Amino acid sequence: MLLGIGVARHLLVMTMSVALPEDVKQYVDDPRVFATLATILPDGQPHLTVVWVKRDGDDLLVSTTVDRQQGKNMARDPRVTLIISAPENPYLYAEIRGNVSLTPDPARELPDELSRKYTGHDYLTFNPASVNDAARLIARITPEKVTGQR
Amino acid sequence: MLLGIGVARHLLVMTMSVALPEDVKQYVDDPRVFATLATILPDGQPHLTVVWVKRDGDDLLVSTTVDRQQGKNMARDPRVTLIISAPENPYLYAEIRGNVSLTPDPARELPDELSRKYTGHDYLTFNPASVNDAARLIARITPEKVTGQR
Repeated sequence: MLLGIGVARHLLVMTMSVALPEDVKQYVDDPRVFATLATILPDGQPHLTVVWVKRDGDDLLVSTTVDRQQGKNMARDPRVTLIISAPENPYLYAEIRGNVSLTPDPARELPDELSRKYTGHDYLTFNPASVNDAARLIARITPEKVTGQR
Repeated sequence: MLLGIGVARHLLVMTMSVALPEDVKQYVDDPRVFATLATILPDGQPHLTVVWVKRDGDDLLVSTTVDRQQGKNMARDPRVTLIISAPENPYLYAEIRGNVSLTPDPARELPDELSRKYTGHDYLTFNPASVNDAARLIARITPEKVTGQR
């Protein structure tokens, strides 16, 4: 467990990362499983997108760009929530709340890693138009609470 | 289109409902399509659950209870966001942002309607433990913005 201190909503809050349960790790590693990522819009309303996701230990990695709404939301407010469902069983799902850190990905390595996981090909092969993407960011999500219906 | 006036975050805001596109209506009506519902936790972080959903015209109906986190969140802040994916194509999805109104469902009609849509059976048949559910609420979500990748 990692301890961190962050400032949110004008309150000093203590946050604690948690380990991902083994079954959740298996779902995240399954290329049939897409995640839904919730970020916070400037007015507070949730913003949702379906994303590719991979795992680095207990952290979840998502690729975004500096000009996408989800990227701008995470840069402004690091609180995010993800949900994944078991493949072929939508009644089993895990909700993962956490905090995100954004770092540049100038070599665009994460899109390739994700694309190979989900499509078997490099990202440019899967999505040639991505050559025009704005600067890529690695969104590293550290889980703080895992709930759901399992 | 319906015009409404609501007070949110200490600002008077004008909200405008929008019609659901025809393809989104078809996905919502498809019993293979579950929705992910984002509500707002007391501290502002998004809360996500997978839910059954049905349509009443352009409104989306979800059943909840007075004691569930999503029900408590919607009673406190009516801003919600839903996302649905096309069956068997997670790359197609629609994000629906809207406002929710909650009304009692003492006869528990909506859980039965949803259960028949998704399972072909009444809700008590599908989930006998639901006899112990707290008071049911109908969450009627009026769309205000529909985006996504289609």
